Amino acid sequence: MSRQRYGAGIWHFATYVDRYATDGYGEPRTVLDAIELAGRVRDLDVVDLNYPFFGGQFSNEQVGAALQAAGLGVIGITPEIYTRTFSRGSFTSPDPGVRRLTHELCTEAAGVVRHFGADYVKLWPGQDGWDYPFQVDHGALWKASLDGVGQLASENPDLNFVIEYKPREPRVHMSFDSVARTLLGIEKIGLPNVGILLDFGHSLFGGESPADAAQLAIDYGRLFGMDVNDNLRGWDDDMIAGSVHPIELFEFFYTLRKNGWEGVWQLDQFPFREDSVAAADLAIDFLKTVERNLDRLDMAAVAEAQSRQDAVGAMRLVHEVLFA
Amino acid sequence: MSRQRYGAGIWHFATYVDRYATDGYGEPRTVLDAIELAGRVRDLDVVDLNYPFFGGQFSNEQVGAALQAAGLGVIGITPEIYTRTFSRGSFTSPDPGVRRLTHELCTEAAGVVRHFGADYVKLWPGQDGWDYPFQVDHGALWKASLDGVGQLASENPDLNFVIEYKPREPRVHMSFDSVARTLLGIEKIGLPNVGILLDFGHSLFGGESPADAAQLAIDYGRLFGMDVNDNLRGWDDDMIAGSVHPIELFEFFYTLRKNGWEGVWQLDQFPFREDSVAAADLAIDFLKTVERNLDRLDMAAVAEAQSRQDAVGAMRLVHEVLFA
Amino acid sequence: MSRQRYGAGIWHFATYVDRYATDGYGEPRTVLDAIELAGRVRDLDVVDLNYPFFGGQFSNEQVGAALQAAGLGVIGITPEIYTRTFSRGSFTSPDPGVRRLTHELCTEAAGVVRHFGADYVKLWPGQDGWDYPFQVDHGALWKASLDGVGQLASENPDLNFVIEYKPREPRVHMSFDSVARTLLGIEKIGLPNVGILLDFGHSLFGGESPADAAQLAIDYGRLFGMDVNDNLRGWDDDMIAGSVHPIELFEFFYTLRKNGWEGVWQLDQFPFREDSVAAADLAIDFLKTVERNLDRLDMAAVAEAQSRQDAVGAMRLVHEVLFA
Amino acid sequence: MSRQRYGAGIWHFATYVDRYATDGYGEPRTVLDAIELAGRVRDLDVVDLNYPFFGGQFSNEQVGAALQAAGLGVIGITPEIYTRTFSRGSFTSPDPGVRRLTHELCTEAAGVVRHFGADYVKLWPGQDGWDYPFQVDHGALWKASLDGVGQLASENPDLNFVIEYKPREPRVHMSFDSVARTLLGIEKIGLPNVGILLDFGHSLFGGESPADAAQLAIDYGRLFGMDVNDNLRGWDDDMIAGSVHPIELFEFFYTLRKNGWEGVWQLDQFPFREDSVAAADLAIDFLKTVERNLDRLDMAAVAEAQSRQDAVGAMRLVHEVLFA
Repeated sequence: MSRQRYGAGIWHFATYVDRYATDGYGEPRTVLDAIELAGRVRDLDVVDLNYPFFGGQFSNEQVGAALQAAGLGVIGITPEIYTRTFSRGSFTSPDPGVRRLTHELCTEAAGVVRHFGADYVKLWPGQDGWDYPFQVDHGALWKASLDGVGQLASENPDLNFVIEYKPREPRVHMSFDSVARTLLGIEKIGLPNVGILLDFGHSLFGGESPADAAQLAIDYGRLFGMDVNDNLRGWDDDMIAGSVHPIELFEFFYTLRKNGWEGVWQLDQFPFREDSVAAADLAIDFLKTVERNLDRLDMAAVAEAQSRQDAVGAMRLVHEVLFA
Repeated sequence: MSRQRYGAGIWHFATYVDRYATDGYGEPRTVLDAIELAGRVRDLDVVDLNYPFFGGQFSNEQVGAALQAAGLGVIGITPEIYTRTFSRGSFTSPDPGVRRLTHELCTEAAGVVRHFGADYVKLWPGQDGWDYPFQVDHGALWKASLDGVGQLASENPDLNFVIEYKPREPRVHMSFDSVARTLLGIEKIGLPNVGILLDFGHSLFGGESPADAAQLAIDYGRLFGMDVNDNLRGWDDDMIAGSVHPIELFEFFYTLRKNGWEGVWQLDQFPFREDSVAAADLAIDFLKTVERNLDRLDMAAVAEAQSRQDAVGAMRLVHEVLFA
Repeated sequence: MSRQRYGAGIWHFATYVDRYATDGYGEPRTVLDAIELAGRVRDLDVVDLNYPFFGGQFSNEQVGAALQAAGLGVIGITPEIYTRTFSRGSFTSPDPGVRRLTHELCTEAAGVVRHFGADYVKLWPGQDGWDYPFQVDHGALWKASLDGVGQLASENPDLNFVIEYKPREPRVHMSFDSVARTLLGIEKIGLPNVGILLDFGHSLFGGESPADAAQLAIDYGRLFGMDVNDNLRGWDDDMIAGSVHPIELFEFFYTLRKNGWEGVWQLDQFPFREDSVAAADLAIDFLKTVERNLDRLDMAAVAEAQSRQDAVGAMRLVHEVLFA
Repeated sequence: MSRQRYGAGIWHFATYVDRYATDGYGEPRTVLDAIELAGRVRDLDVVDLNYPFFGGQFSNEQVGAALQAAGLGVIGITPEIYTRTFSRGSFTSPDPGVRRLTHELCTEAAGVVRHFGADYVKLWPGQDGWDYPFQVDHGALWKASLDGVGQLASENPDLNFVIEYKPREPRVHMSFDSVARTLLGIEKIGLPNVGILLDFGHSLFGGESPADAAQLAIDYGRLFGMDVNDNLRGWDDDMIAGSVHPIELFEFFYTLRKNGWEGVWQLDQFPFREDSVAAADLAIDFLKTVERNLDRLDMAAVAEAQSRQDAVGAMRLVHEVLFA
């Protein structure tokens, strides 16, 4: 009887800057500081690490030692293909030199995945897209997105690559903007080792039902990872999971369970002004509430209500187990 | 120890048309049919009635008899100033004849309020606003909105008039679009018998925090009524209360309780494809969950967390009482 | 030197109801009335006809005679699979009888397409989707959507079927919600005679760039039709084309021209409170402005700016030809 | 016959960071660098300066010399009450020490306004608001917002203070969120020297019509300043003015002209990836197109169409002068 494993992006435990608080929402932290904080979260098993490691020059071994001290494993490596060098695009930069740098950084990240025995390289090409009407040749941009990912996947057949789509930010529009667009691209790439990391909040923000997005990705055999958080559906607020949309979060996990999807339940939160550890603990406590109440949910009765598309009946079943 | 009273717009128990299903989502019902259905809801005390009564020619006495049979009282009367006659505006119609008809219909509605001993005339001037850039003289439009409401309120000092604001629909932009705009207008009108009916969903749709909107209206002494429902924040979906935003609903009622606001908890739902009675029962059952859990909430501890603007601390207190 | 052809949905010349103005925004019109009005538009060549013909019992011959008198051809037939019968779904109704009726109505519409020598059956399954979390089995719903369309396309290999996607309305979420989802579905169906009718406003509403959506559909060989209108990006307002987003409209037509796409430029507008003919004339006059200014646009210079993703350079080229 | 004066926030010529490109979208610049760049814009007259001056320790005299060399005047001073110190609130911080620092910094900024003979202290309390349900006592938060501004205005009766409202960012919800809420607050403060700086993009983002917002602020005698930019209505994208919403921009300036409002036309753009000077030149060139076409617009005919709320007629007049 395996217990559910929990994870988090290591950036959950960093501090942040934005275009206003340019001096940051707190003292800068190194990746080692962040790992130490992550280790204090009650139920955290694994982390996703940005690469290069932030806050200084650290070797894989140093990071590995910190992880061991904190009792944490590595689920994925996220190459930082969205910093200044890549600010006009990574896979889709108009500059071939930058496209080459993108490839090199992701290839290095693949090496780090191998080093840590992690599950995947996570690609979040947040600077690939456009801001203005008429700015780009849309066909060429999309082709460059697929070529870049495809080359990596074909050169590293031993590893999985996951694409984390998002509607926008920092670009006004991001190339991999939705579950369907990303699946369309993955099918075009046509390789078995490219999948989706579904971010619950990105899905909400994009007007999707995260449960529907998960089902679609699963039906294509491409749901390789996921993370959760919350927002007001109009932006990627990366708020604490369960603080705004507990019912859709419950439906999301219901869908995973129904399909026998058994991966790590990860957090992708940005606690700008909150205590990182407290924010993670609150979220994971809520995820455990979800887990517990899924055990209590009469899934056959839900399925029966759904066969009639009976919204009131299904919601009543959910309300009964979810609320006190 | 008075029990909480519950209400609903009588249109909750009607059937609907829209621009696609022009033949309606069900057989047309008369107001008498709707009252009969409302009477089957387990915990409903009062209804808000559209005027003229829909589905036929019915006298106040006929309607009163149906209400009595159903065990229901009347909280308000909503003159239908948004049908064909008023489709280019009611208080703000460019046609002075239509503005006069608006005044006459609302004056009749005031008589119906007196007949039933209801609490208010509810004004929802949904056709007052604009669709296109350059369509209207914005200053003149706003002045007409205030003049229309002001005249009614000054001619009927014995009655309360409540304005239900909404960002848009059926107009692309509605004149009374937000709590602040409406309060600004009410202050300009300057009469004691004009207040706000705060619709939880309209507030969410408008990007407000409904709790903040309620507090503001209360601080101006203008929260005369309220109703709840739910939506995805991008439209006035009029879904079942508690189906999407249970936490913000809880905060809304927390704010009412904190301020000692003791009015009716009403529903404004449009169950297009659902059984009306089941949809109302589900919502009211959820409102009772809210009520019960407010009793359990440590309001002093919440206030203390709020004094530090401690989001995590306050949310933990809420999660602990709200979820199973 | 072929002149551009213009079209409109015949509903542009109908009157409308909504959930508030249940008595309609004007006197009901028959399809024959609407055709007569359409004939008054200065530059209209073809119309898309709802089926069954609205406002009475009319034969194909009667409608054909009215079209001939108005000087109009038929581009497509839109079966009304979104009225009361289908209000809980058409292809995805939980009721197999309704799914069968959907098939029958669309099959009849195919006959009407053949009668008029039109280009396609247009499928807009606006009632296929969901309203509430937990309401549907998402995998089953999507499968039913594809099965329904696929069956029609395989049974009628001589005809084209176009799917008009939209994010939502009247459902809170519509199954065919985006260009990418629809293409994914079409690829799964795997038949050559299923394509997309791209509605400019639906694309804006869904957070897409309509130019990007068009390019993607073209790259898959699936852009079978299109129509334009405008909105505020938050709803399918079906406003007059060129009233809010003239630059993105210009980019949309730029994309069509660049790809040599030479179909009809259609309108899908709902002039609730406006004169239908004046609204169509204004829109088509703007489309002619677009056409004329595309002739003046230095497309090579735009392409060069786009090769550098130079937003300012490209926008300057556009501003110079588009504005006075 | 005075020529229109143009202005810009000096940050238009800075480089930016965000939460992803933490190393910035370009080399950091000092305020002196930025002034030098601003001086290269063809038609710029004045700038709004952040205070403290960014990029180093600079005296008023040094900045003044740079401005003189660039041929620029100062319209306003914007105290940076949104950096790390103020990241949990400025006027509304739960920490009284931070509230005092806010007051001190704004008081210093008032001195800089006097030094440069500028028009106003601009208050943009972007960190005042909330992120989570239940995080704040809404009544107390609003009171603190008004107290903070009121104290400054009453202590500096010789100066004007302008509040720049915005719906959100960096907070999930900002206290001064809309024109109506801000006017409500200003009326409560009750001092003559507090007004609004209306940002066109913030108004669009908040679901307002900027023309309507301007008219309302003017009718209260509180439109003390304005700036323009553009966005997709879902976020404060601070894009180049005229790149998305040229018609509503035209209506905004039409409203100013109609009311005889004769202030500076300012830019508030964030050209993250664009050449700052080119972005400003493009925007101002478009504003000159607006100015020129306003001269050609038959304002009496527009007013006549508006008296009938004739959207099509008014839009035709606009299309005729605005488009080539």
